[in-house]
Amino acid sequence: MVFTEEDVKIESISPYGVARSTATEKPLSPEDIRKIDAYFRASMYLCLGMIYLRENPLLKEPLTKEHIKARILGHWGSDAGQAFTWMHFNRLIKKYDLDAIFVSGPGHGAPAVLSQSYLEGVYSEVYPDMSEDETGMQAFFKQFSFPGGIGSHATPETPGSIHEGGELGYSISHAFGSVFDHPNLITLTMVGDGEAETGPLATSWHSTKFLNPITDGAVLPVLHLNGYKINNPTILARISHKELEALFVGYGWEPYFVEGSDMESMHQAMAATLEACVLKIRGYQKQARDSQKAFRPRWPMIVLRSPKGWSAPRKIDDKLLEGFWRSHQVPIPAVASKPEHLKILETWMRSYKPEEVFDKEGKLIPELKELAPTGNARMSANPVGNGGQLRKPLHMPNFKDYALPDIEPGISSLPSMSNMAQFLRDIVAKNMTNFRVFGPDETESNKLGEIYNAGKKVWMGEYFEEDADGGNLALEGRVMEMLSEHTCEGWLEGYILSGRHGLINSYEPFIHIIDSMVNQHCKWIEKCNEVEWRVKIASLNILLTATVWRQDHNGFTHQDPGFLDVVANKSPEVVRIYLPPDGNCLLSVTDHCLRSTNYVNVIVADKQDHLQYLSMDAALEHCTKGVGIWDWASNDQGQEPHVVMASCGDVPTHESLAATALLRDLIPDLKIRFVNVVDLFKLIDHADHSHGMTDREWISVFTDNKPIIFNFHSYPWLIHRLTYKRPGQINIHVRGYKEKGNIDTPLELAIRNQTDRYSLAMDAIDRVTSLGNKGSGVREKLMNLQIDAKAKAYEDGIDPEFIRKWTWPFPKST
Amino acid sequence: MVFTEEDVKIESISPYGVARSTATEKPLSPEDIRKIDAYFRASMYLCLGMIYLRENPLLKEPLTKEHIKARILGHWGSDAGQAFTWMHFNRLIKKYDLDAIFVSGPGHGAPAVLSQSYLEGVYSEVYPDMSEDETGMQAFFKQFSFPGGIGSHATPETPGSIHEGGELGYSISHAFGSVFDHPNLITLTMVGDGEAETGPLATSWHSTKFLNPITDGAVLPVLHLNGYKINNPTILARISHKELEALFVGYGWEPYFVEGSDMESMHQAMAATLEACVLKIRGYQKQARDSQKAFRPRWPMIVLRSPKGWSAPRKIDDKLLEGFWRSHQVPIPAVASKPEHLKILETWMRSYKPEEVFDKEGKLIPELKELAPTGNARMSANPVGNGGQLRKPLHMPNFKDYALPDIEPGISSLPSMSNMAQFLRDIVAKNMTNFRVFGPDETESNKLGEIYNAGKKVWMGEYFEEDADGGNLALEGRVMEMLSEHTCEGWLEGYILSGRHGLINSYEPFIHIIDSMVNQHCKWIEKCNEVEWRVKIASLNILLTATVWRQDHNGFTHQDPGFLDVVANKSPEVVRIYLPPDGNCLLSVTDHCLRSTNYVNVIVADKQDHLQYLSMDAALEHCTKGVGIWDWASNDQGQEPHVVMASCGDVPTHESLAATALLRDLIPDLKIRFVNVVDLFKLIDHADHSHGMTDREWISVFTDNKPIIFNFHSYPWLIHRLTYKRPGQINIHVRGYKEKGNIDTPLELAIRNQTDRYSLAMDAIDRVTSLGNKGSGVREKLMNLQIDAKAKAYEDGIDPEFIRKWTWPFPKST
Repeated sequence: MVFTEEDVKIESISPYGVARSTATEKPLSPEDIRKIDAYFRASMYLCLGMIYLRENPLLKEPLTKEHIKARILGHWGSDAGQAFTWMHFNRLIKKYDLDAIFVSGPGHGAPAVLSQSYLEGVYSEVYPDMSEDETGMQAFFKQFSFPGGIGSHATPETPGSIHEGGELGYSISHAFGSVFDHPNLITLTMVGDGEAETGPLATSWHSTKFLNPITDGAVLPVLHLNGYKINNPTILARISHKELEALFVGYGWEPYFVEGSDMESMHQAMAATLEACVLKIRGYQKQARDSQKAFRPRWPMIVLRSPKGWSAPRKIDDKLLEGFWRSHQVPIPAVASKPEHLKILETWMRSYKPEEVFDKEGKLIPELKELAPTGNARMSANPVGNGGQLRKPLHMPNFKDYALPDIEPGISSLPSMSNMAQFLRDIVAKNMTNFRVFGPDETESNKLGEIYNAGKKVWMGEYFEEDADGGNLALEGRVMEMLSEHTCEGWLEGYILSGRHGLINSYEPFIHIIDSMVNQHCKWIEKCNEVEWRVKIASLNILLTATVWRQDHNGFTHQDPGFLDVVANKSPEVVRIYLPPDGNCLLSVTDHCLRSTNYVNVIVADKQDHLQYLSMDAALEHCTKGVGIWDWASNDQGQEPHVVMASCGDVPTHESLAATALLRDLIPDLKIRFVNVVDLFKLIDHADHSHGMTDREWISVFTDNKPIIFNFHSYPWLIHRLTYKRPGQINIHVRGYKEKGNIDTPLELAIRNQTDRYSLAMDAIDRVTSLGNKGSGVREKLMNLQIDAKAKAYEDGIDPEFIRKWTWPFPKST
Repeated sequence: MVFTEEDVKIESISPYGVARSTATEKPLSPEDIRKIDAYFRASMYLCLGMIYLRENPLLKEPLTKEHIKARILGHWGSDAGQAFTWMHFNRLIKKYDLDAIFVSGPGHGAPAVLSQSYLEGVYSEVYPDMSEDETGMQAFFKQFSFPGGIGSHATPETPGSIHEGGELGYSISHAFGSVFDHPNLITLTMVGDGEAETGPLATSWHSTKFLNPITDGAVLPVLHLNGYKINNPTILARISHKELEALFVGYGWEPYFVEGSDMESMHQAMAATLEACVLKIRGYQKQARDSQKAFRPRWPMIVLRSPKGWSAPRKIDDKLLEGFWRSHQVPIPAVASKPEHLKILETWMRSYKPEEVFDKEGKLIPELKELAPTGNARMSANPVGNGGQLRKPLHMPNFKDYALPDIEPGISSLPSMSNMAQFLRDIVAKNMTNFRVFGPDETESNKLGEIYNAGKKVWMGEYFEEDADGGNLALEGRVMEMLSEHTCEGWLEGYILSGRHGLINSYEPFIHIIDSMVNQHCKWIEKCNEVEWRVKIASLNILLTATVWRQDHNGFTHQDPGFLDVVANKSPEVVRIYLPPDGNCLLSVTDHCLRSTNYVNVIVADKQDHLQYLSMDAALEHCTKGVGIWDWASNDQGQEPHVVMASCGDVPTHESLAATALLRDLIPDLKIRFVNVVDLFKLIDHADHSHGMTDREWISVFTDNKPIIFNFHSYPWLIHRLTYKRPGQINIHVRGYKEKGNIDTPLELAIRNQTDRYSLAMDAIDRVTSLGNKGSGVREKLMNLQIDAKAKAYEDGIDPEFIRKWTWPFPKST
């Protein structure tokens, strides 16, 4: 059989006309509808006011262009659908005493959210100058999309928001993050049909396979099929009803449809449908909780098909406006230059009857006021929306108890991650309802599997017999693994934004996948620092392993340490980068990060066996300082060194120490100072980052006139950019990954990038001018050693000298 | 009704047993099955050989640990399913004379692909030392996952591959890119069920809404449900059959199932199913082509449910191997230390009967050889897989014909994008089958809508009446817009990798979404440069607009110019970054980029109205040099300047020139040299990048002893990192975006980041020490001007001085 056009034909997709809906109850009385429609009109009026007005907020005078903002900015397209959804949920919050927040997914839908917050009174409580009267309303209008004011997304300044929606795609994963371990919470989540086309959103629908109906709350998504993006139709609005329904059934949801434009019947349909969904959610939760048997229901979700720009004029100058992409942004742009357009705007605004819904002073009339819940039941006042209020510090075991014991510097060889995994396991065990570990299928591979002994991996998909054989899956678990960095990161962000703690672990090369998400989170917390009422949240902790230097068979595609550059571009107020050189430093740094707030902490640590250097006490001291001279590896005590060997990162430290050992063995009278950097931002000037060293401190560690051979984990120029102002910066010679690699043994990869012991030792010789002829002899020897090592790797496919057969310890002579 | 566990119960998901399939024909004779199974065994034998053997490739001797590689690396898990799919398609290529390539989506599936290429003889043709005999086989085995050899993905060294699969998620979008405008091509695309969890993959299934059955080829996806990732079950393998089927129907596909493990019945089922799908594809294509009426069918796709590690031992030491995640990587890791495991391996390898399928010399026996197609019909030899072979240079109109005319430097104000849009329109018109423009819903917003006059937006979703009102949609179009940067980028990569040309345009802030994809593409072309037989492909051209400096109401979330840092980390062999200061430079640079090969070109240009500076001739000269002194804005002719004012980027150039004008107005005897940089890599040393200036050239432009006030489009430290070696680098004072912003007018945003005219002029004064008291007076004046400008912005919400009322031209006195 050949499929024809008919098979994918759209059966009923016009957003116009009397409502069609899955739920057909009629819960609203005519009086209810009258009131709720008035509330809707009040909300729409406020939205237009924000976009247009700087004066005359209640239209007490005829509208003139002097009342209009000089530059008109803002978005109208999704406002109606979002406000409509929010306020219909208010009825259910009151009726069923729900605990709920609203996540606004569609781009630029802030007027809807802001207007609801203002109508609920929360906005005026938070910002007293935006009071519930004419003056306050004018200030509320003027600040919107205005210099020094607020933007057209649900920015941190927005009460109740944990999701800005500037970059699209994360509403569902943020929403799920907010309801994990919040069993009573329902996160009502508006998803834009533009947003729904993004990859991150498209896979996040699968989050239901990780939601436990006993211990977690619920997400109620409302896919807003308003049909258009900035300038294009949306895919999901242009496929058949059958395909659309199948898609969500396939994703594991039960879709409810609400479609139409006629206000009265739409109110009834939305009220009925939201109520049916809430009852479904509570039914599943009750069933699971009463029986103490968790299962994965097909959770309800809603498809709301309403016109883009709903309730705007359908056409202006014979050009489509409502129900078309032209209503996306400012719906009537030329009101200042076209008097007839100004008139249309005025007529339109008056059609919402501001004089009916606001009293003379500009306050919402009491019969409408009572439609909203009160106190913290208001979605814009729910403490989950200001998660720091709910945050409790973690119960932390003493990290020193997990010390790698009996460290002989540079002789002990142990995996840095092993005790770290125990530490994390016990943090999980002590914080079973407010700490989770996230990662895309790599926790075990990253040598952190020990965590499963405190909390397994959440899995609400089907179970097979095989899973008993080390599957580590559980209905109730503490580790979240899905092969989507986007979803893991989104869950974690939602989880900490709603007041809890967490850590994501990932392969270093693929963390670039979420560059943009981390960027946006940095921007969120940076702005939160400027918003007085925002309480600090737990830091976003990112543990990167499977690093560039140990990609023995993954090769070039898995070699990219550049995430650090992306993070280093963010505001110094919010980012921290740590490169612990060994296991005890890793513990110390992690302890510090998990106690911190409002940062993005990045920790880079290799998961393979490593030489260890510092006892726990020494590690704690070293990490507290962030940078330090390692006396046990130096021989310049009490003297000026000839050269400073510096390192940052575990594998680079290993090679830098080996270079130091080689040099001291071959040129015993060369005075070497060995410096290690744990806290990358120590390198910046103190004026530019609170962690930064002063120049005085810098000189005491690095000198201002000696050659510095700096071996770095990532791209070498990051060090140059951090130190370009430093005294003696001209003497800093940085080695790092410079995009040279393939299938290489660790030593060979280091040689390709000149970060290996031989290259570093040669670098030192090249820069210590006093060595003369003696230097050239040693240089030749080093060159030959390097050639031999490389040849051996090619022959056997292994590095005989890497780690195990290293010429260590340092010559006894020192 | 309350849903129960039963509703989401899995009906039939065991991958074990006799095949179950949608297509039930039995196209294979017993003799066919015997041969095809022998071919499969040959392929599996080669896969194991690659993972384990360095010697004894044909197992002519009993296997000892000396024959095994010292370090065993590589992946087994998805090999069987991929090889199985490939070779069954061979039958159809021969039967129906198909033009086909294979895209290997699952991570680390290279042994499957490599073994097929070797069996087809292509590998030995391309690499003569890997000949079809015992010696060649040994070399072929040894190089795999071996230092200096090849990796376990379908790397550029792999004949027929256009998709490495190192980072997961792009197989479907790459595949679609390859078939656009290739009407006869079928791209057989294996999708891993782990990969299917990623966001980019999850949304890319919607690509069918952009595929025209008349002018484009077809993608035949095979979702490989082998059930496990590295250490976890996969989501799609653990949902009910009903949900799985619904999901793909919802995505717009018609799913065919092939499930089981029994070899004989699986061969029959796969043969029947692939054939049914090929016939479906050809049926739809014929229907559309005969009628010349394009439509969107539900294209067929296959769900192949077979055990992970298929054909390995089910258990070893009572631990599950086949059909479990343990078979992901090296299936039996400890063969060197456990003799009994070595024995198991030997028995397993011999179970494939190498002596039956290879002759004594090690060559595949003739009756098997003839199962594969010949010549370019072999999927590993198809020229599409080495797209440079197919690339034809674009027919380019003369970009000078699109010049913005009559430029008065710094007086003419025009949108830089307008003539560029005409240029692109005509390139589209002249290259209607091998050039496309891609972008996530922003082409019109980016002021490039003129392109639609040559080729509209491809849209195979439903059409509404409304679309006639400026929708610019068409069944056959040349612009590809979907709100998924991942999908757009993936399509473009697939399109150029298969021999065509294209350009993606995007908002600058959200290009970080595809950081990782661009990284991977850079790495791909970098390696291609080392692979002799790879013919160069068209460059990947990225046009960034809606830049950081003009986010008037989008605010902080839309301010991120850091993509340049990500790109600058890639190898200088493959990346180019251009920041044209005006419209004519934009044309010149774009012309250059579209003619180039094997680069990633990034062009940054604002879409708003701008002052214009250079006539087309001057622009061409300036862009050819990449950096230059603008004499018309300088007054140091024939003398040493007191200060060098330098800029890179259009808005920064605008402010830098304004600063220069202010300074020259206020301090007429101050000698200023104005320098503009178009080609960012001019700043690096020539030794580090082929575009780089020598130090001699550097000094002739920038001097080595004068203060340089450098105004940069992006984060300022990028300039420091590029210039840290330069003579006089200590004199470079860089301004740029330093993560300060909110809802700001352009001038206010510049002031916040000190990139505005007043700050720059003050910077100059602060650094020209000879000015003395005179400087402080001017400085105070500048400060007051700045305060006034800022106050005005706050009051009115507009910048009265930005662009329109600027104090220009330069004082006549010079």
